[in-house]
Amino acid sequence: MSSDPLEIYEELQAVFSKDVKSEANQKFLGGLYRASCRFLGKARSQPLKSLVRGKEYFAFRLGKKLSRAVNKMLFVAEPEEWEGFCKAISSRQTPAMESERITRIIYSVAASFFCFIDLTKDRDQKTPGTFFEYLIGHLFAWLLDVNPKTRLPVLNLDMEATLPTDFVFDLGPNRAKFNLPIKVSTRERVIQVWAHQRVLDGVYGTGRFLGTPVILTETKTDKKKSEVIEICLPDQWRIYQMHIAQLKRIYYLDVPVAYSRLNDVFPPLIVKPFGHFFAEADTLPT
Amino acid sequence: MSSDPLEIYEELQAVFSKDVKSEANQKFLGGLYRASCRFLGKARSQPLKSLVRGKEYFAFRLGKKLSRAVNKMLFVAEPEEWEGFCKAISSRQTPAMESERITRIIYSVAASFFCFIDLTKDRDQKTPGTFFEYLIGHLFAWLLDVNPKTRLPVLNLDMEATLPTDFVFDLGPNRAKFNLPIKVSTRERVIQVWAHQRVLDGVYGTGRFLGTPVILTETKTDKKKSEVIEICLPDQWRIYQMHIAQLKRIYYLDVPVAYSRLNDVFPPLIVKPFGHFFAEADTLPT
Repeated sequence: MSSDPLEIYEELQAVFSKDVKSEANQKFLGGLYRASCRFLGKARSQPLKSLVRGKEYFAFRLGKKLSRAVNKMLFVAEPEEWEGFCKAISSRQTPAMESERITRIIYSVAASFFCFIDLTKDRDQKTPGTFFEYLIGHLFAWLLDVNPKTRLPVLNLDMEATLPTDFVFDLGPNRAKFNLPIKVSTRERVIQVWAHQRVLDGVYGTGRFLGTPVILTETKTDKKKSEVIEICLPDQWRIYQMHIAQLKRIYYLDVPVAYSRLNDVFPPLIVKPFGHFFAEADTLPT
Repeated sequence: MSSDPLEIYEELQAVFSKDVKSEANQKFLGGLYRASCRFLGKARSQPLKSLVRGKEYFAFRLGKKLSRAVNKMLFVAEPEEWEGFCKAISSRQTPAMESERITRIIYSVAASFFCFIDLTKDRDQKTPGTFFEYLIGHLFAWLLDVNPKTRLPVLNLDMEATLPTDFVFDLGPNRAKFNLPIKVSTRERVIQVWAHQRVLDGVYGTGRFLGTPVILTETKTDKKKSEVIEICLPDQWRIYQMHIAQLKRIYYLDVPVAYSRLNDVFPPLIVKPFGHFFAEADTLPT
């Protein structure tokens, strides 16, 4: 495999959709992690001032370029961890690896490639966003052992149309279906996630699709001040969960402090580190 | 008043929110139209290839810069039209000016300033978007004779919060309330409009707020090919109107061909040129 992260990314891009759950995709993701870590070895890390209680952040610096904020407790530049993780999920059963470690590994795969892009490109938001869809989409597909769709038929008496969706996974008759929006961060656009869930509830029946968005982080860095904050709208989330639709889980790689508190109040809104998905995927439909 | 559109815009920006419906704001809008038309007199117009049936588009060119697409049938560079329009709506009754002419005038105020920005700034999307909110927000406020709010209280047993909204207009006890999202164009972000309407329906009661978004256009220009298309998703709109919430009207300045057809099919989804609002505002709540 190439040692240039961008070359590996382009190879992944060329084959990803052919078989989302394939072992080949899993190998490309590991290769990208390895190549990105090697690249970041040339950069130096610069501490940032974290205004988020209980979290520390740093950024990679190379020449004049500064990467996005990276969570110090979550980031591990150890590519061999990916192989260990793949082994742990190879049986598609509850993995023999603790959830926190899984979260750190997946966070690091995403963050290392994102920082590589930050340090080598100008204002490229699209590549990180697409890569994050590949990473999370593949892992869901692998664990559920089914490839996702991105369009669903809508049969509605006098109109026949297809509805474009985020990744949806259909495990077959009488089994669970998942609606998987994947976002690097959400901000005020998050209402779309609830709205799409409502459309699925309306068209196919309430609860037929389990809404399980996966989001990387809600951090925002003020580069001039070297300060990191989290942008969260917990009261709005509660209103959306009460009045638009019910999401089953909201997974984060770097769970925002303000959202983790939603686990304890009405309405039920379960926000968890993504590593937990691998242990609870089986029981989510119940 | 200054003859520099940007200076007038900054003056408007400084005072707009203090009294949205004020005659002072109306004068600034007219001044901006006049100054923008004068500026565009220095530019030459370049025909574009319209792939939209029944519509012709051109762009303004100044040196190397090319403006966005302008609808030839709608654009009038006649600043005195604004004064005529203001006179026609001064009584806040059904204006003695036909709807089509009103649509053309308002379209031209927006398009002339947008093209000025296109020809003098690099990739500035924010100024046109904010200006369009000023233009439409003021006209709604003027006609309804009430200033808008952008936050509403949510009282919900054990939580007290405020909900940030687009412009909402409350005409008082037992009278209509309007929910007015204002967008230059919508594309796939349009689902937010239905989702916000659903939240208002849920929190305050279905139908309490009339959803009346105002959108400029859905054109997209391929500058290399000099081609103009309209990006429309009519089947998705029908699904949103059936499954998320019911919007009362969708007003456009430049009504997309594919959306105008929605007036004739199920579900009821009334798409009209914005000029019609001035004649039907009274009867919308019924």
